[in-house]
Amino acid sequence: MSPLPPADPALLAATARTIRGLSMDAVQAADSGHPGAPMGMAEMATVLWTRVLRYDPADADWPDRDRVVLSNGHASMLLYSILHLAGVRSATLPALTLDHLRNFRQLHSPTAGHPEYGHVAGVETTTGPLGQGIANGVGMALAEAWLRERFGADLVDHHTWVFVGDGCLMEGISQEAISTAGHLGLGRLNVLYDDNRITIDGATDLSFSEDQTARFRASGWEVLSVDGHDAAALEQAMLAARAQQERPTLIRCRTTIGKGSPAKAGTSDSHGAPLGADEIVRSKQQLGLDPAEHFAVPADVTGFVRGRDAERAATREAWQERLAASEHGDDFARYHSAPDLGAVQWPSFEVGTNLATRKSSGAVLNAIAAQVPQLLGGSADLAGSNGSLLKGFDYVQAGAMGGRNLAFGVREHAMGAICNGLALHGGVQPYCATFLVFHDYMRPSVRLASLMGLPVVYVYTHDSVFVGEDGPTHQPIEQLMAMRTIPGLRVMRPADAAESAAAWKLALERTDGPTALALTRQGLPVLDRGPGKLASADQAAQGAYVLSPAAGAARACIVATGSEVPLALDAQARLAADGVPVQVVSMPCWELFEEQDASVQDAVLPPGLPTVSVEAGITFGWSRWADAHVGIDRFGASAPGAKVAAYLGLTADAVVGAVRGLL
Amino acid sequence: MSPLPPADPALLAATARTIRGLSMDAVQAADSGHPGAPMGMAEMATVLWTRVLRYDPADADWPDRDRVVLSNGHASMLLYSILHLAGVRSATLPALTLDHLRNFRQLHSPTAGHPEYGHVAGVETTTGPLGQGIANGVGMALAEAWLRERFGADLVDHHTWVFVGDGCLMEGISQEAISTAGHLGLGRLNVLYDDNRITIDGATDLSFSEDQTARFRASGWEVLSVDGHDAAALEQAMLAARAQQERPTLIRCRTTIGKGSPAKAGTSDSHGAPLGADEIVRSKQQLGLDPAEHFAVPADVTGFVRGRDAERAATREAWQERLAASEHGDDFARYHSAPDLGAVQWPSFEVGTNLATRKSSGAVLNAIAAQVPQLLGGSADLAGSNGSLLKGFDYVQAGAMGGRNLAFGVREHAMGAICNGLALHGGVQPYCATFLVFHDYMRPSVRLASLMGLPVVYVYTHDSVFVGEDGPTHQPIEQLMAMRTIPGLRVMRPADAAESAAAWKLALERTDGPTALALTRQGLPVLDRGPGKLASADQAAQGAYVLSPAAGAARACIVATGSEVPLALDAQARLAADGVPVQVVSMPCWELFEEQDASVQDAVLPPGLPTVSVEAGITFGWSRWADAHVGIDRFGASAPGAKVAAYLGLTADAVVGAVRGLL
Repeated sequence: MSPLPPADPALLAATARTIRGLSMDAVQAADSGHPGAPMGMAEMATVLWTRVLRYDPADADWPDRDRVVLSNGHASMLLYSILHLAGVRSATLPALTLDHLRNFRQLHSPTAGHPEYGHVAGVETTTGPLGQGIANGVGMALAEAWLRERFGADLVDHHTWVFVGDGCLMEGISQEAISTAGHLGLGRLNVLYDDNRITIDGATDLSFSEDQTARFRASGWEVLSVDGHDAAALEQAMLAARAQQERPTLIRCRTTIGKGSPAKAGTSDSHGAPLGADEIVRSKQQLGLDPAEHFAVPADVTGFVRGRDAERAATREAWQERLAASEHGDDFARYHSAPDLGAVQWPSFEVGTNLATRKSSGAVLNAIAAQVPQLLGGSADLAGSNGSLLKGFDYVQAGAMGGRNLAFGVREHAMGAICNGLALHGGVQPYCATFLVFHDYMRPSVRLASLMGLPVVYVYTHDSVFVGEDGPTHQPIEQLMAMRTIPGLRVMRPADAAESAAAWKLALERTDGPTALALTRQGLPVLDRGPGKLASADQAAQGAYVLSPAAGAARACIVATGSEVPLALDAQARLAADGVPVQVVSMPCWELFEEQDASVQDAVLPPGLPTVSVEAGITFGWSRWADAHVGIDRFGASAPGAKVAAYLGLTADAVVGAVRGLL
Repeated sequence: MSPLPPADPALLAATARTIRGLSMDAVQAADSGHPGAPMGMAEMATVLWTRVLRYDPADADWPDRDRVVLSNGHASMLLYSILHLAGVRSATLPALTLDHLRNFRQLHSPTAGHPEYGHVAGVETTTGPLGQGIANGVGMALAEAWLRERFGADLVDHHTWVFVGDGCLMEGISQEAISTAGHLGLGRLNVLYDDNRITIDGATDLSFSEDQTARFRASGWEVLSVDGHDAAALEQAMLAARAQQERPTLIRCRTTIGKGSPAKAGTSDSHGAPLGADEIVRSKQQLGLDPAEHFAVPADVTGFVRGRDAERAATREAWQERLAASEHGDDFARYHSAPDLGAVQWPSFEVGTNLATRKSSGAVLNAIAAQVPQLLGGSADLAGSNGSLLKGFDYVQAGAMGGRNLAFGVREHAMGAICNGLALHGGVQPYCATFLVFHDYMRPSVRLASLMGLPVVYVYTHDSVFVGEDGPTHQPIEQLMAMRTIPGLRVMRPADAAESAAAWKLALERTDGPTALALTRQGLPVLDRGPGKLASADQAAQGAYVLSPAAGAARACIVATGSEVPLALDAQARLAADGVPVQVVSMPCWELFEEQDASVQDAVLPPGLPTVSVEAGITFGWSRWADAHVGIDRFGASAPGAKVAAYLGLTADAVVGAVRGLL
């Protein structure tokens, strides 16, 4: 990349000043928000966008653009301001207007309090919950490196830039992300640290005194330190970071929060509340802005920020020509599309075989991997137990991006957020795996995947007290239900190998949100569905279906999930022997069943038919579908799984008793 | 402390060998478990217990004992072995017998797969989910320092020792804990790192390459490195760590996992599965144990481990004499008892005043703090917003433990685990605070508090979409329900200031588990309960109660929580005006209502009476109590709170409509 001619310092300063003015005005108009961080980071954003960033404002979806993440999402006005000045837009999202900025934090305006993915062109991820963004950035940088290995620098040649604040670096997830990025040698990941020494409660020295330079270096990062208000120094540091391709780089930018505010700069007063009309007047005076003007955007500033747009467009067009001419063109498109499962040779499972769903899941995953080259994932140090390894493929390692298995280490939280970053980047279909009980460790990232509608797949094995001897700390009780409470997350708990295959198919066909698979440690029989039944993928797609009709007019219904379906069938047989016909419903997915028409729901769970639910977890929530419940409303115990289940009353006897209690 | 005479190296070696033998045998007998870590850490435990640790095996509850945490809880056989050898017991829990070890991981044996608090004397906390233990240790060391400031070294003079493995140090929570401990200068916290370079999936270099020495030093720790199999070097390092009182100390113990196993030492094969009978024979041969013997405990080993018991007892007795003679004796007992709320001057709140429950909570908290000196807590950098600051008290800081406010920084996960450590240590009644949506960040620690039955109080403010402009990332939707799924956690959502006070009272009177308070950002009217009503504490203790009876024979019931109770009252008034009498039930706590007799439940929510639930969150689960639901089954939006609520249909109109729909 040839060096740019020097920028006019006056225009750089005017741009930063304009960002400060817009940020103050928008927060004041909203009567809520965070002016301090955007004012402190105004030069950082100005230099990045005007001097360093690879992007074309006319196409925010260009695959080879640099990615920018605002991990300290409360500084949203920084991002909105610069995106407005740059005129960033995409095929589906218009550029931010001044009216959007005037309606900061208002209903139906895309300028939400924290940046939201899919609302504004140029917002690469939803941030706000601290620490998530830096881990998203690790995922994006990993996707870039992994795709560059496959398609070459002609087609994949961009960088990832992440703004972080002190809060992000206090959150534990940041350490997991930093450690992972250093280990993988993600040299194109560059983090811009707004080192302002202020948090909401006051100076950071109230609670935060570690040496960030030493901390990052301990994880193999390059660390540069600059005055965050010195545009020339910032540019030099960013260019050095971009040139450093072996290691990720942290640029410590020493800044003053709320810079420009005479009374509140450098204090936590500027962090999370409007400066106030009077202080804004004084700030504008100090900054050289006209206090009478609000939401002022001088033409020379937009002219400056957009001054290289023709060159930016040409760069993108040249890339598109290379793509069109590339032998990899079809493959590139394939990687960047939803997985095509048409050619998958689904494994077959023999009826009656005893097979844990984690194992059938592993077989299915490997069958899919052979046909879906963009499938990339791994486990938080439980690959063998989770059945999540893609056999015949290497682990991805620093400088060796040819593999397709990721070793996340015991870092569930970053694993979730890195998968969000992989999905957001595009070109990768991510999945990740751990024990179900450790969903709790990564829940904030799962929530964000649901909020953003990202097609991440979670492989959660060891899904009940049948974990056994590892005891209550490792036995999920409430996790299934707690996952079902998350809007947009699809939770699938297959009852056997056939439903496992169906669950994977549905998960990968879904493009608008994440799917969690809850899988057993213990063996389960491959069920005999008999001839002429619906294919299990269609059945599973319905969320629930009559697996085994009553032998006669049903007097009751047993609805079960996963490993409790065989238990329900056992109870059905016992009741039938006593002349009580009941039907058994397998319900692999509540969310899909909720989406069905009432007529479908009523056919599966007839209104008025006494119904018992059976699930090896908390019964909380099952009132939605059943009148009586067999489950586990306490923490588990350490013993062989079957003994724990019997001890806790999860037995066919209990199911029979519950049915009889309703008759 | 005068130095001990040197130990007999042969006896130290025999003790370590015995631990290895017990660990191999127990895992083999259970046919599951983790032999590698106990075998690798055998010398570490031997030296700690025989040469360094301050404890009396006859009284595992002695307040001035050293605390030991096994953060890598899968190494449970290490702890069980040494506790057995030492004969550790308490007033309520007997010493572990060989039969307990033979029944490792079996039903009703206290030797669970992972160590469980309250089952075995000497197990100071439940571990297994990695990284929790080191943060518990920070809490324990903090409690020690805080109590020493109050009672002097005559009564409080102990250390906290934490075993950690690579997995603990990969988890983000460990960074939060390390950073906090360094910041607070917890010099009596000493961490013993089992640096064996192996995790489940293989060598740590698969995913973990940071420099731990540099990482800890960056947070202000002292770091020592030793050969983890050299008893003399271990003793020297532990004594140096104990002498270092300004900074916490990490002792990197370079070890070989599975040491003693000819075929599996140094490999992940020894991590999580029995070695196998043949390999155990070979291992015992290599170690100098008799392969024909199982669960062998030579008399000279117990003799050695227990050789200083008289001295240990004398130390404890001397302490008890000092306590009996101390002017602080009564206070010491008071700190170590459940909070006595008898003298609290509860604030009064004027009916009709508009007051956010976070604010009434803050007033109540401060009133309690004045009378409950052991109350210690703080916020994850949201003290002002959470109303969690104890006014007139300082922040606790390094070398200045006189304060009563903790600044946890933006570290929710460690905050939860540190509070567990404070509660486990005793002498402190902990509470902590953040926004409700960030419960997700600390959920694994809340689960463990529930599992252990610790009386931690969580102050979760900004409990709904009424958060407003911060948008969906900051608006809880599913968190209330997700908390209710955790067994043993009590979730209270007060409807006004009176219920806030009742919630605090109930939370602090509870001794067998944690309580989460869900509190509003926005103002709520202090409700008029009229003369002659039950006191609200009694009403709240019932979990739900008729707040406003129907004006006439009730045709329906509206059950609401928190900020939706005024909405329910509004709907009631509108329906009354239309000649439809309905009763309004306030339900501050599901769990308490679940505990009531059916007669009480039926009096509040009469069976057959059409019932509508109203809560500003997901309706999932409300089928348990109501026939129709007004709630929010999607993520929120960024706008002023009232506008978001109206946009999402959380209105009195909607409640009226739902009631009419049932009639």
